Amino acid sequence: MRTRVTEMFGIELPIFAFSHCRDVVAAVSRAGGMGVLGALYFTPEELEMELKWIDDHVDGKPYGVDVVMPASYEGADFAPEDLVGKLQGMIPEGHRAFVEDLLQRHGVAESSADAGRVLLGWTDATARPQVEVALRHPIALLANALGPPPADVVDLAHRHGVKVAALASTPRHALKQVEVGVDVVVAQGTEAGGHTGEISTMVLIPQVVDAVDVPVLAAGGIGNGRQMAAGMALGAEGVWTGSLWLTVEEADTPAMAKARILEATSRDTVRSRSWTGKPARLLKNEWTDAWEAADSPGTLPMPLQFMLVSDALRRIGRSDAAELATFPAGQIIGITNQVRPVKEVMFGLVEEYVEAIERLGGITES
Amino acid sequence: MRTRVTEMFGIELPIFAFSHCRDVVAAVSRAGGMGVLGALYFTPEELEMELKWIDDHVDGKPYGVDVVMPASYEGADFAPEDLVGKLQGMIPEGHRAFVEDLLQRHGVAESSADAGRVLLGWTDATARPQVEVALRHPIALLANALGPPPADVVDLAHRHGVKVAALASTPRHALKQVEVGVDVVVAQGTEAGGHTGEISTMVLIPQVVDAVDVPVLAAGGIGNGRQMAAGMALGAEGVWTGSLWLTVEEADTPAMAKARILEATSRDTVRSRSWTGKPARLLKNEWTDAWEAADSPGTLPMPLQFMLVSDALRRIGRSDAAELATFPAGQIIGITNQVRPVKEVMFGLVEEYVEAIERLGGITES
Repeated sequence: MRTRVTEMFGIELPIFAFSHCRDVVAAVSRAGGMGVLGALYFTPEELEMELKWIDDHVDGKPYGVDVVMPASYEGADFAPEDLVGKLQGMIPEGHRAFVEDLLQRHGVAESSADAGRVLLGWTDATARPQVEVALRHPIALLANALGPPPADVVDLAHRHGVKVAALASTPRHALKQVEVGVDVVVAQGTEAGGHTGEISTMVLIPQVVDAVDVPVLAAGGIGNGRQMAAGMALGAEGVWTGSLWLTVEEADTPAMAKARILEATSRDTVRSRSWTGKPARLLKNEWTDAWEAADSPGTLPMPLQFMLVSDALRRIGRSDAAELATFPAGQIIGITNQVRPVKEVMFGLVEEYVEAIERLGGITES
Repeated sequence: MRTRVTEMFGIELPIFAFSHCRDVVAAVSRAGGMGVLGALYFTPEELEMELKWIDDHVDGKPYGVDVVMPASYEGADFAPEDLVGKLQGMIPEGHRAFVEDLLQRHGVAESSADAGRVLLGWTDATARPQVEVALRHPIALLANALGPPPADVVDLAHRHGVKVAALASTPRHALKQVEVGVDVVVAQGTEAGGHTGEISTMVLIPQVVDAVDVPVLAAGGIGNGRQMAAGMALGAEGVWTGSLWLTVEEADTPAMAKARILEATSRDTVRSRSWTGKPARLLKNEWTDAWEAADSPGTLPMPLQFMLVSDALRRIGRSDAAELATFPAGQIIGITNQVRPVKEVMFGLVEEYVEAIERLGGITES
């Protein structure tokens, strides 16, 4: 296959795979696509180890790293050394009590030794050291979510010969990203897992393609070859996938979430602010319901919400309270019903894509 | 173009156009597609006149009628003669006061002479006489929204040589519809205007195509030729369009709504129960906001909500309170930015569709 995107990265297949799991990233790149490691949960030291591992297992194929530098969040103007303390002070006691009460009602055990580890996530201060680590590795792509990356980061990446992508959920976002020099726009529809906008992939992609000159990847709802063909029919020059990789053999997705995703239908997700403070599509469960209930104190703005809940989510993960296990997932989890190796999923995507294109040709010929 | 759907109806283009406007219906059918008249707002006598007009203006081309027989609603077990009175009694005074207060705050004039006309809509009792009228005309298709049509209605249509379609927003709905004998499933994604589910078109269509043996039309988010190509890539054998026709030259859409739709972006709609009691995608405005506000009494179940608000909506339509003008519209209103005749829109769809298919062919060839 050949588009501006396959040319830009020297890849066989314009299939991008976002994953927090290094095994998935390396396997997708080895299979001819482009694995992209989500750096969010890693300290700079951990990220260094993950990328070293990928370098050793990717057979010289290109791969990418995804960071999160939100364009706006609480405390963006605080000095880095004050950031955690000041933000902690902004979390109301009532919210802490609500979370603790919810956990106790579901029999989740008390906080443990690592409770002190506050995962800030989603701030410029946490993402910049990740960028520095990433650029010491032979990455081909630096991707950013939640707004256009800072212009100086784009320039830095370009000086390292690294292309920059950014996720957009409206045509206006896409235009802002191109203004700061982004090379590829990932236009992501509301059906996507994780942070997501309101416009569907079907409606969004043509508008973004018409708005910008750089190549566009279709994201949100891409889980099989027909969906890939649809994304390309809309004008995209490649696809960006995520939830598809949560249930592959190589994925280190927590067992509780993996089991739920395998059995879930496409109606079992919900857009909720209960994870990070910005709307994200999550598995719908008693956690997301609790934040919508009449006695909910409401969610806090980014990054306060995740600071509030990150320890709770760790404790839930270690408990039997599967009904509270929050996990970002897109609507395509309705079609991910079996565990397969990455290579087989990639092959299936291409095979079904080619079938779809041939079928389409037949409709107009006859 | 040739699919099982073009064969079934003897049409050139597998493009179905839902509209409440007879001029649009006739023009689409004359242009080689299939116009489908939404019967909901018409009394049986009015519907008879509309269909007579279409018969005289459609040049013998096939067209369809869409009725609404919801599978479930309040009062489904009441005797027809008691229905209106009993349902009226179920509307709480607090809800009536909320609506009246909202209108007064926006300077909408008092109720006028035709306030007595209660539009039940959305009940079996109102839809059956419409079906009887429709079957006296040379219609090719009877479509039903909000659940599988009653089996006896499907049989009746078939005895008249009329094919039956039904709208589905989940694979499970589609299976139920095929069980009662539906000939075509319209799989409709959440981005569609009017009553709509949660799953996006991109995610829904392949699941419905895999679940049923009958042909599937893709609905929701289809407003240009690339979107049509995407729908067909997903496995649909035709497309079902709606919002696309609200702004054509022939459409009798109220001027207030037409103006807003022309300038709207794809973010200016919202799924709301404030129109009929079931979730429907509407233009987002102060009306939909008011029902979500802290002082909202909450919406009533179908058909009570529309009984509660139908007179208010008529009064708003006659007022200058454009900010309250409720109107069902899908996310593609972000791309309907100019007024064109039906024929030109149809030609544009096909031209862009063919371009998209050719572009797709080029990607795999090279």
